Amino acid sequence: MTAGRFITFEGGEGAGKSTQARMLADWLEARGIALVQTREPGGTPGAEAIRALLLDPQGEDWPLEAEALLFAAARADHVARLIRPALAAGKWVICDRFIDSTRAYQGGEGSLSDADILALHQTGSGGLLPDLTVLITVDDTETAKRLAARDGDESDRIGGRSAQFHTKVARRFTEMAKAEPDRFVTISGAGSPQEVHQRVIEAVSARLGELA
Amino acid sequence: MTAGRFITFEGGEGAGKSTQARMLADWLEARGIALVQTREPGGTPGAEAIRALLLDPQGEDWPLEAEALLFAAARADHVARLIRPALAAGKWVICDRFIDSTRAYQGGEGSLSDADILALHQTGSGGLLPDLTVLITVDDTETAKRLAARDGDESDRIGGRSAQFHTKVARRFTEMAKAEPDRFVTISGAGSPQEVHQRVIEAVSARLGELA
Repeated sequence: MTAGRFITFEGGEGAGKSTQARMLADWLEARGIALVQTREPGGTPGAEAIRALLLDPQGEDWPLEAEALLFAAARADHVARLIRPALAAGKWVICDRFIDSTRAYQGGEGSLSDADILALHQTGSGGLLPDLTVLITVDDTETAKRLAARDGDESDRIGGRSAQFHTKVARRFTEMAKAEPDRFVTISGAGSPQEVHQRVIEAVSARLGELA
Repeated sequence: MTAGRFITFEGGEGAGKSTQARMLADWLEARGIALVQTREPGGTPGAEAIRALLLDPQGEDWPLEAEALLFAAARADHVARLIRPALAAGKWVICDRFIDSTRAYQGGEGSLSDADILALHQTGSGGLLPDLTVLITVDDTETAKRLAARDGDESDRIGGRSAQFHTKVARRFTEMAKAEPDRFVTISGAGSPQEVHQRVIEAVSARLGELA
């Protein structure tokens, strides 16, 4: 039995990560690959309970440090109970958001550096990194249009922050991808979901061996 | 206005910490000292919500790393929203359990070292330490007797662990007190609550200036 592969999807709100993660999972399964599709924050009952504390729009406005620790706690549960066991069983894991989202949204805010976020990930999850991270980028104008088209109920406490904040998040994602070119592949989110999906499967095939 | 003082009570289950924290708070208030009495995990609405996730006997059995991160998150909220503002306002803060409980219960377990726990506290709460920590010690036989006398509903998911675990916790508390003699005072929990209280007020008076 070969070890599984761990693929994460990253990007800002409205980039199409969840759609693309689902489309890639369907495509891989159609090729006979056993996989687990999951998301963060959440993915296990414990992590979903923490997600509810984090994202409730009516909920507590957490201090930044508490928020980063809660994300790390949810991730530690998710990694220990779902991701590591699946990979050990030879399954592929497709995850919608992972450590890079915490780095993009919390790293460099207030007293927290990117190194602090990575240290929390080391303590909580043994520093597990994906084999491949698909970063989907969409320009600010297109992002604003897509978010405006969403139902208001879909906006959570973090997604609902200012446009300026989301521009900073997008810049941090791009910087991370530049710093780790072997792990990241950056895909334009422009066009239809099917067009983006074609780019994703080309990139994944090239990076993780010819699967098509 | 003088800065407040931060006093924590530590010790194993059934040592009498909560009773002694309350008695010291009453005694200080009777002397005109403005104070806040609080506890961990908890002390703020956000931290109490995390406490509920941590201590529910029917709840999730968290991986050790997730548990340590959840305690650090609850503490970060408690420190930012209650403890630091109270101290800045010149109030004294009397807290039933704080960072040393996390060190005693989680430090040295599994992959987590005492240094890991202190690093999480640095990230979450700027490493805030009490001015004085009162460690109440009770021998194993007396502890077993007191815990047996408690109503079964009072035992939570962590308090309900094995006697061997609680012996290890007691040893870690004693080691911490030896390593930081200027911050810790160790008080025997033997005898009546009133007898223990007399020892506490003598020690607090001696350490933090003559208050009696």
